[in-house]
Amino acid sequence: MRKTKIETTIEIIKLQISNKRLTAGARLPSVRQSAIQLDCSVSTIVEAYARLVAEGIIESRIGAGYFVLGKTTQVTLIDTEIKYHREVDPLWISRQSLEAKTEILKPGCGWLPTHWMPEHSIRKALKLVSKSDANILMDYAAPHGHLALRQLIIRKKEVYDLNLHPNQILITDSATQSIDLIFRLLLQAGDVILIDDPCYFNFQALIQAHHLQAVAIPFTETGPDIAQFEQALTFKPKIYLTNSGIHNPTGASLSLQTAYQISKLVERANVFIIEDEIFADFEYAPAPRYISFVGLNHVIQIGSYTKTLSASVRCGYIISHTENIEKLINLRIATNFSSSNLNAEITYQALMDSSYPKHLDSLKKKLLKVSNECIKKLELLDIQPWIIPKAGIFLWCKLPEMIDASELSKLCLKQGVILAPGNAFSQSKEAKHFVRFNVAQCIDQRIFEVLQDALQVLKDQHQSMNLVNLNN
Amino acid sequence: MRKTKIETTIEIIKLQISNKRLTAGARLPSVRQSAIQLDCSVSTIVEAYARLVAEGIIESRIGAGYFVLGKTTQVTLIDTEIKYHREVDPLWISRQSLEAKTEILKPGCGWLPTHWMPEHSIRKALKLVSKSDANILMDYAAPHGHLALRQLIIRKKEVYDLNLHPNQILITDSATQSIDLIFRLLLQAGDVILIDDPCYFNFQALIQAHHLQAVAIPFTETGPDIAQFEQALTFKPKIYLTNSGIHNPTGASLSLQTAYQISKLVERANVFIIEDEIFADFEYAPAPRYISFVGLNHVIQIGSYTKTLSASVRCGYIISHTENIEKLINLRIATNFSSSNLNAEITYQALMDSSYPKHLDSLKKKLLKVSNECIKKLELLDIQPWIIPKAGIFLWCKLPEMIDASELSKLCLKQGVILAPGNAFSQSKEAKHFVRFNVAQCIDQRIFEVLQDALQVLKDQHQSMNLVNLNN
Repeated sequence: MRKTKIETTIEIIKLQISNKRLTAGARLPSVRQSAIQLDCSVSTIVEAYARLVAEGIIESRIGAGYFVLGKTTQVTLIDTEIKYHREVDPLWISRQSLEAKTEILKPGCGWLPTHWMPEHSIRKALKLVSKSDANILMDYAAPHGHLALRQLIIRKKEVYDLNLHPNQILITDSATQSIDLIFRLLLQAGDVILIDDPCYFNFQALIQAHHLQAVAIPFTETGPDIAQFEQALTFKPKIYLTNSGIHNPTGASLSLQTAYQISKLVERANVFIIEDEIFADFEYAPAPRYISFVGLNHVIQIGSYTKTLSASVRCGYIISHTENIEKLINLRIATNFSSSNLNAEITYQALMDSSYPKHLDSLKKKLLKVSNECIKKLELLDIQPWIIPKAGIFLWCKLPEMIDASELSKLCLKQGVILAPGNAFSQSKEAKHFVRFNVAQCIDQRIFEVLQDALQVLKDQHQSMNLVNLNN
Repeated sequence: MRKTKIETTIEIIKLQISNKRLTAGARLPSVRQSAIQLDCSVSTIVEAYARLVAEGIIESRIGAGYFVLGKTTQVTLIDTEIKYHREVDPLWISRQSLEAKTEILKPGCGWLPTHWMPEHSIRKALKLVSKSDANILMDYAAPHGHLALRQLIIRKKEVYDLNLHPNQILITDSATQSIDLIFRLLLQAGDVILIDDPCYFNFQALIQAHHLQAVAIPFTETGPDIAQFEQALTFKPKIYLTNSGIHNPTGASLSLQTAYQISKLVERANVFIIEDEIFADFEYAPAPRYISFVGLNHVIQIGSYTKTLSASVRCGYIISHTENIEKLINLRIATNFSSSNLNAEITYQALMDSSYPKHLDSLKKKLLKVSNECIKKLELLDIQPWIIPKAGIFLWCKLPEMIDASELSKLCLKQGVILAPGNAFSQSKEAKHFVRFNVAQCIDQRIFEVLQDALQVLKDQHQSMNLVNLNN
């Protein structure tokens, strides 16, 4: 006898549960999504889900969707298709910051003000490059990208006890593109990936674009929570994506102990760590790196020069074993053909210029100064840094009791101040009382005035609501 | 009663057939792929396939895999996962050309020799840019990308009877990246796309990277075969990807009649045409464009300046309606964050420089001259152009009777000459007697000597094989 579409749909979902494609606690695709995926009508899915609920295989949670029943663990799979509130939508913050006119204040933005960047090095590099060989100006790059830049990267990575070969490096256009290519190579839609909670919000946008499932590991002062990391391995993640050196948004650095424990776990579970070096050049002394422990067998390192050199000269890299790099080259040819040899040459010339290390030195000193000032000003508003970072541009701060970062961001935006509210960084949405500040973007006293006023408005609202509650 | 995994697998495949996800003639995933996709053992799939063969639902073709039985149409879905022979592997040709040292001759390559490019314009632009505002050198681009360049594109597109708004344009890093972003936005794995046969080989690599199914429409002297195009609409394609202006590899241009007929078909079937303008600047007078007929409702135009300005300055664009552009911006932020404002500024300055139109004029004259010379030299070897293109760099040529382009390419490669054999461009693999020549890369007389020797070797081989056959 032929099965109805409803019965077949039920079979498919049961199969996905029995073979662990859907695990206990996982959210099922929405009725509409399922209908599209299985190419049947919405009513078929509605009926199939209803029968699965009746069978006690899944449950319906009002307003949240359908979830697989069964034993759930503490860390949970987060549905990456959640529609965010505009104020905590990762893409929304990126776009606000990218679109902001110069009169807008951007304490929430993820990069340095223009005049903090090494303008002189870039101008000098451009003049040099304008006289370079025609093939640098005109031709596609070699498949691996600019050789001299790769050799420079090798020398810079020796500090991590690495002895790399140029064929273990691929030049890309950005750190984001590096991660995107690695996701494309190693992951399929539905695969599980581990991220930090909180983490750089664009990681979540990338995860959404690839239709992955993310397990968020609470981030401590010394790295990811080791017990929760171990527990999350039951989801069979393929990749753990993290910032090394200086963590975004917390500013925390990995301890040797945590690096060692996590290294043992990824070796055992055969997980690849993507170690994002984007803030590495801000460090005074390098914090531990996973790559120093488990090498290229379990770590892919990526990075760019966006934060310390220029965001306009697009140039990043991937470090991995040659087998991965070969496959990544083919993917890159298919999807973007070539990296920019010109941008790589400008980057190389600017990095080689003697003014760059001097620029970094003065930049770090300046950051230390403005960071201390910023901390003082924030503390006057009862906004407390979660930790005092060793280096970098970020302060991850807890707001006064009861203040919601998203509400605060809405009020500040009206006054021309763009904040980065905590839940934009948090998959578990447990950072609603946190805000990330970029100390280099917090020079203008108006930011603190706007913050003070907005905090007062929210406190007054709470007070009047409490009074209303008391009177009832 | 619970179903076995084999039974569930059979149900899933039947469902895919009944809802046209797998159509008559379509190849099923390999046993190994299926096992991975459905997360069960290889033996489960082997047994499921065997039962489906026994039921007469699919058939096994030795060495080729399993195919859905039933009425097939003339145009067929091509499995994009085919393992190519190395010599006709699209990626292989790209990599050979990208890796080739200067002493290698590259008549098969898709771009101009370095010294044919407008070196002067780029050097001048670099010097200008080295003095430009700090925000151009240091900051991320605005979400849509460089405004002045978008305005320049609007003026250039007026020739197609278009009245664009800057928010209908997104600056990207390359034409390839433009297509990649559009695929990501509009297509899912398994979706059907129409391409030309032959077409630019990297389109096939892109299609593979996105796990799409391609229907290849024979390309005629005036555009795609209209009857076959109409027939292919039964596969419910979402996109038709083609070069406009000058077609790669044939050099053919669209006629008004074909543009009109295809426009009516895509309107009726609600298909988007991706119109790739990459060779547009080589035209003397613009051939018809689909966008002039059906506008932004059914055409997304993409392009770059790689072929006529510089392949090192990575800069391309997408033209579409604002709804698509908004979504593409979010995807681009997620996967590559920002386009290079620096590269856009260099491109803008070079395009605005008075030397660029002069360069294009002399380039076209030079191409006409070398094209005529190349045709004469090829005809001496009995290699015949399929058509004489109106403009551009390519000659699509038929080899003498019996000569296989792949065998010829192997022999020539040993002598340091990289050819582009026909089947690298052909999904149907019906171009094995064709080769694409780039006339600008065919100046060196050694190319024709190597070709002559290789042709002689192959002819001698055929003759001796024929003798053997006669003697048997």
